[in-house]
Amino acid sequence: MQRFLVDRAALATDTVTVEGPQARQIALVLRMRAGDEVTLCDGEGAEAVCRLASVTHQRVTMQVLSRNANAAEAALRIHLYPALVRAPRLELVLQKATELGVAAITPVLCRRSVARPAAGEVPSRWRSIVREAVEQSGRGRLPELAAVVDFPTACGEATRADLALCCSEHGGEALRDLMAPPVPRTLAVITGPEGGLEEEEVAEARRHGLHAVTLGPRILRAETAAIAVCAAAYCLAGEWG
Amino acid sequence: MQRFLVDRAALATDTVTVEGPQARQIALVLRMRAGDEVTLCDGEGAEAVCRLASVTHQRVTMQVLSRNANAAEAALRIHLYPALVRAPRLELVLQKATELGVAAITPVLCRRSVARPAAGEVPSRWRSIVREAVEQSGRGRLPELAAVVDFPTACGEATRADLALCCSEHGGEALRDLMAPPVPRTLAVITGPEGGLEEEEVAEARRHGLHAVTLGPRILRAETAAIAVCAAAYCLAGEWG
Repeated sequence: MQRFLVDRAALATDTVTVEGPQARQIALVLRMRAGDEVTLCDGEGAEAVCRLASVTHQRVTMQVLSRNANAAEAALRIHLYPALVRAPRLELVLQKATELGVAAITPVLCRRSVARPAAGEVPSRWRSIVREAVEQSGRGRLPELAAVVDFPTACGEATRADLALCCSEHGGEALRDLMAPPVPRTLAVITGPEGGLEEEEVAEARRHGLHAVTLGPRILRAETAAIAVCAAAYCLAGEWG
Repeated sequence: MQRFLVDRAALATDTVTVEGPQARQIALVLRMRAGDEVTLCDGEGAEAVCRLASVTHQRVTMQVLSRNANAAEAALRIHLYPALVRAPRLELVLQKATELGVAAITPVLCRRSVARPAAGEVPSRWRSIVREAVEQSGRGRLPELAAVVDFPTACGEATRADLALCCSEHGGEALRDLMAPPVPRTLAVITGPEGGLEEEEVAEARRHGLHAVTLGPRILRAETAAIAVCAAAYCLAGEWG
């Protein structure tokens, strides 16, 4: 069923109205009509199945038929710290990591980061990519998105997790061993930019208490490493059955 | 060190000449000069470190300094059968699966495949993407690329592997359990198109002897599923340490 993210407040009543791009999407792109059903979710775990009551491309009203808690969220909470890389690659990481299930994403300025962060805030484009990936993947919660941080800040934050990792091209421990049962409830992972983390950065991460892990002898592009380590971690944690 | 794929025959002598796009890449893009070193590999596991002797953008000659066998190939041989999907998504799968290390890729026409296969041959664009990913990732072997096959053919081929899987959104076994030691030496995986494999396709795969596996409760895009299952399989097989 088609899914849409709405504000928590909008889901509080039994008649919900959506306007703007979502109304256009329902009326013009999906060509839905009164009587069709959609799922609304608030991005905080609550969902409702709704029947469309009236549809125009400015405004769609719908009746809540049933409410439930989303069941597709991962028990393992991954906070991904991908190196800041050029926009298309970072955007791929935002989309794929959200589909896979990560709880939070904070890009990190690394020594070999070529891209420079926009001052201060999280770009609205990042938020759109993550929202769409949540809607598409059937997740119930929006991942937290944070503005770019520097490397020492990322290391300091990461060590709050039960298990904190950085992916190193200079060798390291086996993810498979570190994720052996009992699996951690929270995992933080820093992944490097094109060219990888510098050895000094890996050493700094280790001083903070992170484990360096290897993703094998092949050189993965920055975005591939970020996607691959999340996939493997969920699999190892038993999230894939 | 910069790496280039060349013909096996070119690597047989101690003086190697490259022309065309590779010469332009070396001379104009990388601005390399006589005395600089590159690695040549033949895509079949043999490599040579070479010193540039003369550089023009039509022709670069180089001397072989040392020869060695590539050490970055995976022991686990994965044959990936990704559903045929629209070009940008399929191309992402070709690139990422090659980086991760797959031995062979054969796209599969599934019921929900929207894209239609070009008649007969493997598109040259697919070959370029895979070649670049081999050069970039430090691999020693070019994955085998095959033209699109139909679903029953894919199932029949897949069961030649020690372990044959299809990724199902309708539930299935746990990849983690199927990959428990002793790990298979060869693995074949069919992944679905947008919307997933139909239940009847999963049933057909099972009749052929494939195991249906789940990638968890979240709906992954077609390309994400293909990348994720390869990453997890290599990790589980001990390829990541």
